[in-house]
Amino acid sequence: MPIGVFDSGIGGLTVFKALASQFKDTDIYYLGDTARVPYGNKSKETIIRYSLECATFLKENFDVDLLVVACNTASSYAVETLKKYLNIPVVGVIEPGVEAAVAITKNKKVGVVGTQATIRSQRYKNLLEENDIDVFDKPCPLFVPLIEEGRLSGQITQLIIKDYLDELVDAGIDTLILGCTHYPLLKDEIQKIYPHIHIVDSTTTIGKFILSNKKNLKESGKRKIFITDESPSFELLKDILAPNIPVEKVELSKICSL
Amino acid sequence: MPIGVFDSGIGGLTVFKALASQFKDTDIYYLGDTARVPYGNKSKETIIRYSLECATFLKENFDVDLLVVACNTASSYAVETLKKYLNIPVVGVIEPGVEAAVAITKNKKVGVVGTQATIRSQRYKNLLEENDIDVFDKPCPLFVPLIEEGRLSGQITQLIIKDYLDELVDAGIDTLILGCTHYPLLKDEIQKIYPHIHIVDSTTTIGKFILSNKKNLKESGKRKIFITDESPSFELLKDILAPNIPVEKVELSKICSL
Repeated sequence: MPIGVFDSGIGGLTVFKALASQFKDTDIYYLGDTARVPYGNKSKETIIRYSLECATFLKENFDVDLLVVACNTASSYAVETLKKYLNIPVVGVIEPGVEAAVAITKNKKVGVVGTQATIRSQRYKNLLEENDIDVFDKPCPLFVPLIEEGRLSGQITQLIIKDYLDELVDAGIDTLILGCTHYPLLKDEIQKIYPHIHIVDSTTTIGKFILSNKKNLKESGKRKIFITDESPSFELLKDILAPNIPVEKVELSKICSL
Repeated sequence: MPIGVFDSGIGGLTVFKALASQFKDTDIYYLGDTARVPYGNKSKETIIRYSLECATFLKENFDVDLLVVACNTASSYAVETLKKYLNIPVVGVIEPGVEAAVAITKNKKVGVVGTQATIRSQRYKNLLEENDIDVFDKPCPLFVPLIEEGRLSGQITQLIIKDYLDELVDAGIDTLILGCTHYPLLKDEIQKIYPHIHIVDSTTTIGKFILSNKKNLKESGKRKIFITDESPSFELLKDILAPNIPVEKVELSKICSL
């Protein structure tokens, strides 16, 4: 019962790492679409097409019977289409984050940060509002390049965090959803600036969500990472998040079959 | 004698704008590969493949007889391959920048900034060193997302500029090459911080370079912009750089024929 995980690039390795440590005996295959990263500045139509191509690669090559969309942008737009075409359970990162935030917030004011495309989709906003939550959301397009440059702390990083988040905190949120799989790498710095805010991120929520929706995840525990391009920032995050996992480059033409 | 111009995305519109105002009577077709932008964090192999696909689209559809590679990353890696396959003159943005910097510098110390891939290629460095210039180069991966978010000035932008450039200025450069077609949009801010530095950017150098290498550029003066995806940041820069120019989306599958 292998799990397939895909992301627009390397941020989803935060989810891969969390899944690998929670499902020790399960085969997990990760595809990072590093040749076309990021998805967060692309159109809805393109995001859906790329997501279908990534998912199809994992399903056809490894017969995965659960697909985790470890990318908030792809989760925002493509999960319904993926479910329709794949005929296996598909778990995005949005619902687990929403569930966790609804359980944690006391004052029912929740902040959401993510890429331009994720925030524009209003997927978090709609699901939270169905639970009577006041939502304060904000795209933070500088966070990913900050992280990919390795600037996880320091004056510039702190200023950018405050520039984006002060207005959400001033609006009275008590809980903040990190709606992008890169952002957990800034969690410590954000928590330092706003110690009273509860921070929800996909790495802690998705494992629980899968467990509560699916039993008997046990097998041999193979792991493999595929990427569509050997980008320099991949090496940096790979070393932090998934050392010792074998990596193979797959030609983009092999997954562009749709 | 139409000119074809391509870029990984929208930064090349700075070059398009400069060419459009210098060659008023010439047809100019621009292709921005917004579905796969940016190229600056991709591998050499992928950059060459994408560049060939963009160039082939322009050549086959508009019979362009001069190709301008309005992207420093693509210029760094792909110009030789493009010349080999296209059989028309191909002008990158590197040589014009180098020529201009060599003519301007008094102390023969020149700084170069660009994407990770452009700096890694050492294309500027090698060409400048052939002219006995001391080169101080630095990748500035936060500049593009800053610009695409519209942060062309302000405290954060100034701090990031200083964080990248202080060490080049402290090393004694008197001339700085903006080795990325997005960067001219930060030129004013950079000049304000370092008023004594000569700034060289592709928008001022490439037109002269083409003129000195090619005569009789006269025709009807049509302009058209193609993009492979309708990204949100495209709208922002399009309004600044190329208002009133018709835009058409072209399917990625139409240019992925190689």
